[in-house]
Parts: sequence; C-alpha cells; structure tokens
Amino acid sequence: MKNNSLETRKIFSSFFEPSAVAVIGSFRESIFGGYVVVKSLLKSGYAGKIFPVNPGYKSVLNLRVYGSLEEIPDPVELAILIINAKNVIRVIRQCASQGIRAVIVVADGFAERNQEGAKLQREMVKTARELGVRIIGPNTAGVLNAWSGFNPCPYDAGYYKLKRGPVAICSQTGMTNPQAFPYPEMPYGISKICDFGNKSDLDECDLLEFLKEDNETRVISMYLESIKDGRRFMKIASEVATRKPVLVLKSGKTPSGAAAASSHTGSMAIDDKIFNAVCLQCGILRLNTFSELFEMPKVFAAMPLPKGNRMAIITYTGGVGVLATDEGAKYGLTVPGLSPVTQGFLEQIFPMLGRMPVDIGPMAAAVKNFSEIYPVLLKKVLDDENVDSLLNVLWADPTRVSEPIYLKGYDKIGREIKKPIVTWVYGPSVPAIHSLKKRLEEMGFPVFPTPEMGVRALGLAWTFVRNARRH
Amino acid sequence: MKNNSLETRKIFSSFFEPSAVAVIGSFRESIFGGYVVVKSLLKSGYAGKIFPVNPGYKSVLNLRVYGSLEEIPDPVELAILIINAKNVIRVIRQCASQGIRAVIVVADGFAERNQEGAKLQREMVKTARELGVRIIGPNTAGVLNAWSGFNPCPYDAGYYKLKRGPVAICSQTGMTNPQAFPYPEMPYGISKICDFGNKSDLDECDLLEFLKEDNETRVISMYLESIKDGRRFMKIASEVATRKPVLVLKSGKTPSGAAAASSHTGSMAIDDKIFNAVCLQCGILRLNTFSELFEMPKVFAAMPLPKGNRMAIITYTGGVGVLATDEGAKYGLTVPGLSPVTQGFLEQIFPMLGRMPVDIGPMAAAVKNFSEIYPVLLKKVLDDENVDSLLNVLWADPTRVSEPIYLKGYDKIGREIKKPIVTWVYGPSVPAIHSLKKRLEEMGFPVFPTPEMGVRALGLAWTFVRNARRH
Repeated sequence: MKNNSLETRKIFSSFFEPSAVAVIGSFRESIFGGYVVVKSLLKSGYAGKIFPVNPGYKSVLNLRVYGSLEEIPDPVELAILIINAKNVIRVIRQCASQGIRAVIVVADGFAERNQEGAKLQREMVKTARELGVRIIGPNTAGVLNAWSGFNPCPYDAGYYKLKRGPVAICSQTGMTNPQAFPYPEMPYGISKICDFGNKSDLDECDLLEFLKEDNETRVISMYLESIKDGRRFMKIASEVATRKPVLVLKSGKTPSGAAAASSHTGSMAIDDKIFNAVCLQCGILRLNTFSELFEMPKVFAAMPLPKGNRMAIITYTGGVGVLATDEGAKYGLTVPGLSPVTQGFLEQIFPMLGRMPVDIGPMAAAVKNFSEIYPVLLKKVLDDENVDSLLNVLWADPTRVSEPIYLKGYDKIGREIKKPIVTWVYGPSVPAIHSLKKRLEEMGFPVFPTPEMGVRALGLAWTFVRNARRH
Repeated sequence: MKNNSLETRKIFSSFFEPSAVAVIGSFRESIFGGYVVVKSLLKSGYAGKIFPVNPGYKSVLNLRVYGSLEEIPDPVELAILIINAKNVIRVIRQCASQGIRAVIVVADGFAERNQEGAKLQREMVKTARELGVRIIGPNTAGVLNAWSGFNPCPYDAGYYKLKRGPVAICSQTGMTNPQAFPYPEMPYGISKICDFGNKSDLDECDLLEFLKEDNETRVISMYLESIKDGRRFMKIASEVATRKPVLVLKSGKTPSGAAAASSHTGSMAIDDKIFNAVCLQCGILRLNTFSELFEMPKVFAAMPLPKGNRMAIITYTGGVGVLATDEGAKYGLTVPGLSPVTQGFLEQIFPMLGRMPVDIGPMAAAVKNFSEIYPVLLKKVLDDENVDSLLNVLWADPTRVSEPIYLKGYDKIGREIKKPIVTWVYGPSVPAIHSLKKRLEEMGFPVFPTPEMGVRALGLAWTFVRNARRH
C-alpha cells in the first residue's frame, strides 16, 4: 500500500470536497441515519450533487431516492454507508464498479464488537484494497468541511452550517462531530472535522499528512485511543508539528483504559510513557482532558504566538495569581517583574500596583476613575518590554457597570496586538459572565472557562514556539 | 495562646452567629465597603442588631449610624473593620474597651503589602492578644453563615441569601466569597464561608477545629496558600478528615507560585512534596484546580458514599468510557464487568450492550422503544452487585425528546439510592444541556461540567471511605 503524500491529498479531497455523494441507508425520518445525512447536506449548503440510494424509498426531502448505485446518472465521488455491517462488503464492490474510490462506513458492528466483527473488518479492507477503494471508518460519524459547506453528519445536531476557520478537529470517536459539541458557541471557526472510527484503512497518519498541506487548517486538535503505525506516526507528526500546532489527547493510558479502548474501536494499546516520549520528540502538544480538545485551539486560532516565556498576570485577586503562576511553571512560563517605567506608572495610581501579579482588586475598590485607569493599565502591562504574554482575570460585576470599561481596554489594544492575551472571567452572576465573555470573543479575544486553562493555552503556545525554534 | 477546642468554638460562634454586629467603615453607596456590608446584612435576613459606626454619617439604609463604638447602647459581639490600615489598632482597642472580642479586619495594607505592613500586622496581633480580642484577617472578605442568614459580605454580589446546606467553603482569599462565585447556581447549600485572609490570628487550624464539631457542616472545601503551623495542622486535619471530607486546594506549589503567594497574603512557602505527604497521612483529599473547590463537594453533599471501588460507566460514546476509565484508575477505581444476570438482560436488548463501559450509543440509535428501555437499564446497572458507583453520560439531544426519558430513569432510582451516581451531560445545544442539568440537579443528582470531574468526584468519595476505614 502506497503512502504517497500526493495520493493522500487526492483521496482526502474526495472525502472532504466530493463533487457528488451517494448516501446508502434508511431514509425514515429520525435523529440518526441516511435521512439525517441528506438533511445535513441540504442545510449545510453543500453545492455538489446528492444521491440517496435505497430500493425501499422513492424520495427523501424532495430528492429522488435511487434504487441502486447503478441507477445514478452522474459520476459519484464519495459514498456514505449507513447500513448493516454484513452488507458493507457487497456495497463496497458496487461502489468500486461505479468508479467510487472513497467510502465512509458509518456502520458499526466491526472490530469494536467482537472477533467476528474484526474478521469482517479485515475482509472489508482486503476487498477495498483489491478494488482501489479507500475507507474512513467503520464505526464513524464521518467527516465535515466547513469551508465547502460539506456536512454529512448522520446525527441531527440541530445546526448544520459551521463557522469557517483554521481549526481541524479529528478523533477516534464521534464525540467531536457536530451532534456532540456546540460548535456555534466557540469563538473560532472550523476547517475540517474527521472521526476516523476504527481506522481500518485511513488513519491518523493519513489525516495528518493531508492536514499538513491543507491551507485552510492552521491548528490540529486530535483525540486518539491508539497509534496504528508508530514509526510512520513519528515521521509525519514531526513534519506537521513544527509547522502547525498538533494538539493530541490520548486515552487508554492505563491498562484498564486500554481495555476499554479496545472495546470502543478495537484499538491496541501503547505504553503511555512511550507515547509521552514520542510527543516530546515530535513536538506534539499533549492535552490532559476532553474539554481541552476544544478549548486549547482558541489561543492558536485567534492570538499571535508569544516570542518568549514571560507571562504577565493581571488579576482581581491574588489567589488566582498564585494558581496561575503554579500552572505556568509546568510549561516553563515565568512571571516577570515589570520594567521600572511601567512599575513607576502603576505605583503612581495605587500603592503596590506595580508588582507582579498585578492585583487590581484593592485599586478597583478604592479609586474613583477606574474607567479611565483600566484601559491604560491593560495596554501598559501588555506593552511592557518584560512581557511576552498575558493572563487577564476579569471580575464581571453583577450590575455589568464594568463591562464597557473592560471592553474599552481590549478595544484599545485590539487592532495592533503582537502578544497573546488569554482571559478568564469570574463573578457572582452567570449572565454577567456570559455577556462579557461573548463580547470579548466577538472582538477576537479568547476567554477560557478556568484560569488554569487560560494559562495552559499560553503554555502550549510557548511550547509550540520553542519546538519550532529547535527544528 | 490557648488552642482549646471549646474556646475556639466559642469565639467562632461570635464570628458566625453574633447577636449584634458593629460595622466600621464608609457608608457611601458603592459596590464595596461598609455600605455593602450593611446592605448584605439587611438583605440576607440577619436577625441580630446592626450598628453602623462612622462620625461622618447620620444614617445608612434607614439605620442610624453611630459616631463611635461608645455610643452604641447594646452589647456588640462582632466588629467588622473596613477602614484604613493605620487606624486598625486604635479601633481594636476601642472594640476591647466595649467588650467586643471578635473582629474581622477587612482592611488591606498589611503583611501582603510590604515590610511596614508586616510590622503593623504584628503589632495589631500583639495588641489584640493583650486585650483578648480575636481577629479574622486582615485583607479578608470575611465570613458568611447561610443557616443564620448572616452575610456581611463587603462586595456587592447582587444576591444576598444563600441556600442552606452542608458545605463549608473556606479560603485564604476572597475568591470563594459570594461576590466571586454564583452560589445560587450550585445544587448544594452552604453552611459557612470564611476567607481567613492573611490569617494573622485565627487560621485554617482554628477553623478546622470549629468545623469539626459544627453540626451544619458535613463537607469542607478549602483553598490554602500556606500552612501556619504544620504540626497543629496535621493533628487537627487528621481528626477532622476521618469524620468529614476535607478537600484542599493548595497553591504556591512552585517557587514562583510561592513568591506570588507571599505578595498575596504574606504567606511562607511549604515544599509541595511535603504537603502531599501530609495530605496522604491525614486523609486530606487534595484538589487540582480552582473549580474543583466548588465542584467536588457536590458528590459529598448529595450522594451516599460508595461501599467499594467498582465504578460502572454508562455512556453514549466509547471514547468517554476510555477517558473515564483512565481517570478512575488514578483514584484506584476499577471498571467492573457486570454480573451474568445483568449482562444477559442487556444483551437481550442489543448486541454487546452487556459489556462495560455500557455504550448505549448504538442501541439508542437503533431501537424503537428507547423510552422504555432506558429507565430500566439505568436501574439494572446501578443495582448490579458488581457496581459500587456509576458515571452516567447523557447526550442532550437538541430537540430535548430524550430529556423526559432520562428523568424517568433517575426518578425510578431516586428515592432509594444507595450508591453514588455522577452525571455528565453533553450535546450540540447549550440550552438543552443546561435544561437537563438543571432538572437533574433539582432532583438531587449532581451533574459535572466535564466527564473527568465526575470521575474525580467518585474517586475522592472512594478515597474518603478508604481513609475512614483505615482509621
């Protein structure tokens, strides 16, 4: 089997940008299945042709349903199979005879289920290879391309178009497809989503190879339970990770976790210490928790990279300054002293305000002209020559009096930003927190759900810069 | 200085349940200060007497303002000082001469600021001890007692009454007082809140000694930057932690974090490895992140303790099953196989449904009578003899069709629950997630923001049980 990069790019263009797609499955109205695939495609603005196939239906959502692949009058580039596992090989043969080279096997009941399913999966792959057909899956929720509006999601997410942007999310589970996560709430846009499922054929390496050259993708966030080919993974990951941030959450760390992974996608385990060493060597940015898959891309999508490891902190409360300092140390971030000029400026405003972390709590409660001080202070600290990045902690007061003051500060630095800022908003009122978060993210500034996550994002950004310099 | 337990209880009853309180500060309308303390007290339903003191005011919020402590006609049990640091010692003397033995010094500008402030703090404590006055603070947002409706918060949180419940939150920062966190959104109620600030006099040990015997407190969640007296801390923590869960987030782990702590509350560092060993020996449940301070008490407040370490998982997606298995292993939780009876029952419903983690995704998409199957399945898995606790993962579909089905399941097990369940809700629609979360929490079932947090809560609950057995 060739692992030629050009080949890979060609085949993935059939998966992500097909001119015509055949959907083979049930077209009963439901929240899962062929019906939803067609609905998602129609609503996501897919410009190619859609050919539903099922001898039991005449039409679905005002589209003609074809009795078989043979009846379709036009060339088809991609087929999506949401059918019983036992019929998959037969339909792959039909696909091949119609010139279809790309097949997404949504169907489950393969290696993730039992020995019999594993055997079926091997036969399926063998057949496909003989016929020159490439497979994503089985046991997958499939792919998505936000730029071309190609969203064949088989689960009804309730929304269909995704914001276009630089973040590719790929995963060995459907947990990152639209039905599982509220992408419209995220500040960044998506380039591609891909659940490679049991990765019987195309896998994380192929996808990385494709995304390496994909101009619409600047950040890659990936969930893995296993690595199919360690040597190849290291080679490709090293090539990609110096160009684009590759964030990886790897589960199956423990023996019991690995056993669970095996029953989920039929994966083989890899020793977690070895995988850690692989990440360090290749420049992969390793994630710790599921939500980081979605949160950490924020900083890469919206902020410039830091030029050094000196993280300033502005906070309403010293306690968070201490926690943030601890967290930053894990990534080699140091909390710098401010330059004498900035220090002098801040001390004039309020005693001890020039210290780092800059604790604005006492000052904010005491001064009368906070609305004028804050925007200037924010910019002065960010512009300080000793500062490479900034964690900004904001207290969303319940009356929202401070909201416009904060926004004025961000507006002041907004257009010419050269250093990354991450923000954490806290306070006693959930609506006030949400409002401020939303406004800031609309302005292009990422807001994180916890202070530790914000620091971690800066830590990963700095790690990426350091890795890229090393190469 | 005596550390007599009875003495401690007596003095804390003056702090948490004073019959009359004097507030010395500014009564200008503001979002911070004496004005807000009086407002908070009036709105929180405090039944005792409130005596605002400031020669520059005649009245505040329809209360008479006294020119001095001497003018107050009734005995006062507690004084709250929100005044310039340099006046604090003088006012403490006045308090003592009026028979006031408990003083909260909200004022900052002490050890957290500089050498001069540290000296002032030492003098203040020396004076107080000579006069028999006990201090919480300085540099504190003070205390709160939800059971007696005593909320003298000096920052305006926009809400004033807190739900009564078993959780005590205490902290070396104001970040856990009402203005910093939306307590009304939490499913549990509060017993006491205490920010001990610079803990110049009363500290974490005194508070633990008090909370040990406090009948309204069943769970203690604590943020620390330093330990004032290691030996005493170990003695008291060991006594409390076998009776009630003591959750501790300790920052200042790294040298730079410790330096930040010193500038926040004037704390001295403690080697983090030593503190870890202390926690293990005393049975303290150590937390990792700030949000865990608020999230982890959920399981102790609402759920029975697990009798063993076998955590079942029901999930819509195998990926989360793998992540949860990994996370559980950190706390010695194992993911058990189900008993043959339960397995048989589940396999009759759908192929492979009897495996653990129980992946209901394929079944839910395929069966027609999910609404009948789900409630029975949930109870069967929970009741299985091999199961001590349960992580339940729910997909909130965007149309909310499944919401009543899930609720039926919880309702079925609700009244007679003998094993802890933690829930994680995910999906493509934030309103659908929030709605389901809210309904479940109203029914008394804790819902966690991430799957890892849910598992961690079970892990801490199991650790508490194991520690208690050891003693």
